[in-house]
Order: sequence, then C-alpha cells, then structure tokens
Amino acid sequence: MPRRLYDFWRSSAAYRVRIAMNLKGIEAERTYINLTKGEQKAPAFRDISPSGLMPVLEEEDGTRIFQSLAIIDYLEAHYPEPALLPADADGRARVQGLAYATAIDTHPLTNVRVLNFVENEMGAGKDGRAEWIAHWCHAGFEGLETRLNREPETSAFMHGDSPTLADICLIPQIYFARRFDLDLSPYPTLVRIDATCAALPAFHDASPSQQADAVG
Amino acid sequence: MPRRLYDFWRSSAAYRVRIAMNLKGIEAERTYINLTKGEQKAPAFRDISPSGLMPVLEEEDGTRIFQSLAIIDYLEAHYPEPALLPADADGRARVQGLAYATAIDTHPLTNVRVLNFVENEMGAGKDGRAEWIAHWCHAGFEGLETRLNREPETSAFMHGDSPTLADICLIPQIYFARRFDLDLSPYPTLVRIDATCAALPAFHDASPSQQADAVG
Repeated sequence: MPRRLYDFWRSSAAYRVRIAMNLKGIEAERTYINLTKGEQKAPAFRDISPSGLMPVLEEEDGTRIFQSLAIIDYLEAHYPEPALLPADADGRARVQGLAYATAIDTHPLTNVRVLNFVENEMGAGKDGRAEWIAHWCHAGFEGLETRLNREPETSAFMHGDSPTLADICLIPQIYFARRFDLDLSPYPTLVRIDATCAALPAFHDASPSQQADAVG
Repeated sequence: MPRRLYDFWRSSAAYRVRIAMNLKGIEAERTYINLTKGEQKAPAFRDISPSGLMPVLEEEDGTRIFQSLAIIDYLEAHYPEPALLPADADGRARVQGLAYATAIDTHPLTNVRVLNFVENEMGAGKDGRAEWIAHWCHAGFEGLETRLNREPETSAFMHGDSPTLADICLIPQIYFARRFDLDLSPYPTLVRIDATCAALPAFHDASPSQQADAVG
C-alpha cells in the first residue's frame, strides 16, 4: 500500500508535517480525520493511534510513525535534502530549542482537546477559552521574539537563510493565533519571518485553506 | 568557565537532563533556580532564559542550549555512548514517538506555570488543579500503556533492553504522578519499567530526592 498520512486541515501538528513533506518533495495518500467532528475519538482511529492524536504516518510496509516531530525526523533521515536542521551541533541545538519553544511550550496548551477541556470540563466558557489561548500564545511568542532579536543567527528565517524545523513549528502557531485575532504587533520579527515563509510554495501549499478537506 | 546546568530538583525537564548526563557520565556545575520561590521569573534568570523556562545548559564558551530535549540531543551528538536512540530509523522513530507522548502531550500540561494558571487565573482552585493533573496524566499513560503492550519492541525498557529517550521522559512523569497520589494500577507495564529504571544508578542519582537543592 502507498505511504499514507492521517491528516486534518486545521491540525497544527499535521500542518508541520505537510510543510516538511512539501519542502522535501514527498507525497502521501491521505486519510482525513475530522477533529471538529470528533473522529479522532472513534474506535477505528483509536485502533491506529491509541492516544487519539494526529498526525500519523503509515509507511508502505504498515509501519506507523506517531508524533509530528518524530515523523519529520524520520523523513529527514530518509530524505536528507533540503536539511531541516543545521549540520553543526550548536546550530542544531539552537533550531531545536526554538522549535520546541513552540512545539512543546506553546502548542500542546492550545490544541483542540485542551481548549475543549478548559472551556467545558473546567467551566471556563468561551471567554476563559479565549483568555487561555491569548495567555499561552503570547508567552511563547514573547520568548521567541526576544531570542530572535538578540541572537545573530536570526536572518531571513529563524536560523539563517533557509527554512528549518523552527520555522516549520512557528508558522502553524501563527496561523492559529490569527484565527483567534491575537495582536501580533509586539512580534515584528515573527511576523516578518511568517511572511517570508508564506511566499514559499512549500509553506503556502501546506496551509490549512489549501487542503482538500478544508471547510469554509 | 565550566559547563553549567541551570537546574531544580523537582523540574521534570531538568530531571530528564540529569538522567541523560548520568547515563553518559557527563558532569556540570549547577546553578539552582528555585521554581517554588519563583526565581525563574527574576530578571537575572529571564536574561539567561527569555521564556523563564528550565533547564538551560551553558557550555564552556558561554553557548546556551535551551529545552531539555535539545540539550539531550546535543549531548548525544558529543557523547554518543551509550546511545539514547536506536540506530535504525524505525526504532528511532518509535522511541521518539513514545518520548514525545510524555514530553509533548503530557508534561507541558502539568508543569508548574500551567498548574498555577489553572488553579489561580482560571479559578479552578485546588480541586480543579487536582482534576487537571489526573486527567492529563491518565490520558498520556493510557496511550502509552496500550502501545507498549501491543508492540513487540517493548522489553525490559520501553524499547529493547537498554534505556532510551522514551524512558528518560517517562520516569519523571511517573514521579510527578506519584507526588499527586495518582492510581497507577491501570499501567502495569509503565510501573514495571519504572522499577527497572529505578534500579539503575543513573536514574536513581538523578531523582529529585537525591539533589543538593532538594527540600523536605
């Protein structure tokens, strides 16, 4: 069977994998799991992904790779060009640190299962949900903007003049923040890099509105 | 100046780095940042770590590495033995996927800044905080237990017969869950692997109670 990505247009984690695949010219069949309709909770998908989380990459031999960052690392090993991490250890550590500031410190707090839990189970309601989103997005963006502005490796992209894992993680979080009308004016460097990425077909074609399962 | 780790005994992320350093026989001076006292918010530490997050590794030339997983990857590059990731791509992807199920899907929801926000800013109080902790720990552990039980690579450790990044991420989360008296009986495989790790000096010596800044 062909390579398959369990995907959803609005999933930030799937969006990361789509960018990486586009940059490397990798194709995959799609199975769309509609997170809005709760399809990730259905037994059929739980049998594939016990955590109910997305995305999942399924290889031709049936091997399943879980977690967007593990998928990207796996693709990097099999398709090393263009590299998504610098070859030098210091640069690699810097890019990972910047990527994880989004992928670990920010995004896990703003994915749909957490937002629903905050709004409903915690009783925070729509206003509490919005406050939650703003608080954690701003916390993440502030730290990144400060680092990018003081570190000389920042250039056209977060690290040098080609996109890296750091940009791949940042851009879906900025898309998410815009959906919720967050004020991004305190982050001119992030906004500049977002625009630079948006001009690249690999990023544009991976964006939610361009997906076959996009709605509205 | 010598290599330095900004550390705190109860930080799960710092605990991961301590395990990795012990496994590889790496030493570092310590600067303790007391998260309970809010020292991570002080300007002196914010100047080092703009996000206010821990741990940070400072190299002899002053280079700073942020994010526990980036630090461990950096140490793996410089001190490849013993390897914390399998050499084969499928094994590497599996270990990363298991590690990230804790480090990305679970731990970011249960670190101190998030728990304080849930309890205070969101008004959930002590009970809401406890409910939050239990919900996300159980969600993470359930997915892991299911995968470990159905995948043949699970052995003495989460992947094979030596500790990997997956165990390094799991053990601090189990320590955290025990602090809050979570019932771990639904997770016999996780509990078995935790006991296997606890018998290794590298894990034992990295545990919170063994740290110079431990209290109580």
